[in-house]
Amino acid sequence: MNLGKVVGTVVSTRKEPSLDGIRFLLVRLVGTDGKETGNFVVAADAMGAGPGEYVLTAAGSSARQTTVTQNRPVDAVIMAIVDTWEIGGKTLYVKD
Amino acid sequence: MNLGKVVGTVVSTRKEPSLDGIRFLLVRLVGTDGKETGNFVVAADAMGAGPGEYVLTAAGSSARQTTVTQNRPVDAVIMAIVDTWEIGGKTLYVKD
Amino acid sequence: MNLGKVVGTVVSTRKEPSLDGIRFLLVRLVGTDGKETGNFVVAADAMGAGPGEYVLTAAGSSARQTTVTQNRPVDAVIMAIVDTWEIGGKTLYVKD
Amino acid sequence: MNLGKVVGTVVSTRKEPSLDGIRFLLVRLVGTDGKETGNFVVAADAMGAGPGEYVLTAAGSSARQTTVTQNRPVDAVIMAIVDTWEIGGKTLYVKD
Amino acid sequence: MNLGKVVGTVVSTRKEPSLDGIRFLLVRLVGTDGKETGNFVVAADAMGAGPGEYVLTAAGSSARQTTVTQNRPVDAVIMAIVDTWEIGGKTLYVKD
Repeated sequence: MNLGKVVGTVVSTRKEPSLDGIRFLLVRLVGTDGKETGNFVVAADAMGAGPGEYVLTAAGSSARQTTVTQNRPVDAVIMAIVDTWEIGGKTLYVKD
Repeated sequence: MNLGKVVGTVVSTRKEPSLDGIRFLLVRLVGTDGKETGNFVVAADAMGAGPGEYVLTAAGSSARQTTVTQNRPVDAVIMAIVDTWEIGGKTLYVKD
Repeated sequence: MNLGKVVGTVVSTRKEPSLDGIRFLLVRLVGTDGKETGNFVVAADAMGAGPGEYVLTAAGSSARQTTVTQNRPVDAVIMAIVDTWEIGGKTLYVKD
Repeated sequence: MNLGKVVGTVVSTRKEPSLDGIRFLLVRLVGTDGKETGNFVVAADAMGAGPGEYVLTAAGSSARQTTVTQNRPVDAVIMAIVDTWEIGGKTLYVKD
Repeated sequence: MNLGKVVGTVVSTRKEPSLDGIRFLLVRLVGTDGKETGNFVVAADAMGAGPGEYVLTAAGSSARQTTVTQNRPVDAVIMAIVDTWEIGGKTLYVKD
C-alpha cells in the first residue's frame, strides 16, 4: 500500500455507470516523515475519508476488493484511514 | 486512477479481433494544476471522450471492468470524464 | 497501452511448456513523436508483427486476453499494429 | 518480489472490515548490498515479521495469495523472512 | 517481460507454506546490450536457471501461470532461459 494524504476531490458526472455513487479523492503520496512527495493518485473512497486525513491506498485488482469498489473499473482505493505510524519505536504521526 | 487529458487518436486495423470497434486515445498525464507531465498512455475509450477533455484512466485488470473492455487485451481505459477538481476547497479545473 | 516499435527478437528453447510457439519480440517504447525513449519491453507477439512496425503493447493480466497468450506466463503482448496516430488533428505517423 | 527491511508499523482502526486483524508494516526497500534505497512500501504481514528483519514482499494480486490476505484489499504482503542471500557465491547477508 | 541475468540466490525458511520448494533467485535487469541496469528483482525459478544465465521474467498475476507458481504469493517468475537475441538482424547475445 501507499501512504498518502487526502487533499481534494475529483467530480465526474459522465462516467461508467457502475461508478455512480463512488467518490474520487485526490491523494498526495507522502514519505515516512509525512511530507508530500509530489506524486498523487486519484483513489476511490471506500472509507468516507476527509481532507487532511492520512490514508492507505491499495492499487490494481486489490483496489476492487472492497464492498464499494467490487467489479468496478477503479485501480486505486482508500481502504484504511491511518491513526498513527512509528519507525524504530518513534511515533512519526498521530491523528488529531 | 490517473488524471489525464485527451490529445489524440491511435488507429489500428490489424489487431486482436476482440478489439474491433474500440477507440484508442492518446492521453497525456497531467498534474493537479492541469499541466501535462510529459508522460502519456494509450487508453481504450469507454466514454466517448473527445480531444481536450480531462479524464480519469484506470490501469491493469481494472481497465477491463467496463462494458466496452470486458475480457479484452487492454490495460488502460478512460472510465470517467472530469467535470471539476478541487484541492483545499480551491477549484483548480472546471470543464467548459 | 504503450506505444512501441518492434526492433528485434528474443529466442528461448528452455521455457515454460505452455510458451511453445509464442514469439518474443523486443519492443522499444516510443514517445508521441515516434522517437525511442530508451526503455524497452519483451512482448509476446499475438499479431505477427515485424521489425520496424509500430505497435501497441498491453501489460499485466491484460496481456493474457489474446488467443495466443491465454493462461500463459506472459506479462506483455503486442495486441495491435499501428496504422497511424494524430495529435490535435496533426498526423504524427503513418505506416508505409 | 522486492527485498526489504521492516522498520515500523502503521496503525489504522477505521478500515475496510475484512482487514481486521491484519498488521501493516513499513518496509524500506533495500539493494543487494542490504542498504536502504529510500523507497518504502506498507505491506500486510503474513509472517509475524519484526523490526529489523529482511523480508520479501509480493505486490499486486499476488499479495492476496496468502491465508491472511485472501480476498482482501491489500496490494503488498510480506510472504517470506530472509535468512541469507548471496551473489556469485559471496554471502551478502546472514540473519542473526 | 524483462530481460535479466541470474546473479544470486535468496534463502528463506520462514515463509508462506505454499512457497516450500520454490527457489528464489536474484535477477539483475539488463539492457538490450546485455549490461546490467542497476535494478534487480527477486524471482521464483520455474526453469532451473543457474548463475550467469540470461532469462525472461514475467511479473504480476502472470507470474502465477507456471506449474511451479500457481496460486502462490509470488509476483515475479523466471519463465524462460534466453538462448539469443538480436536487433536489426545483428545478434547481441548468444548463450555459451
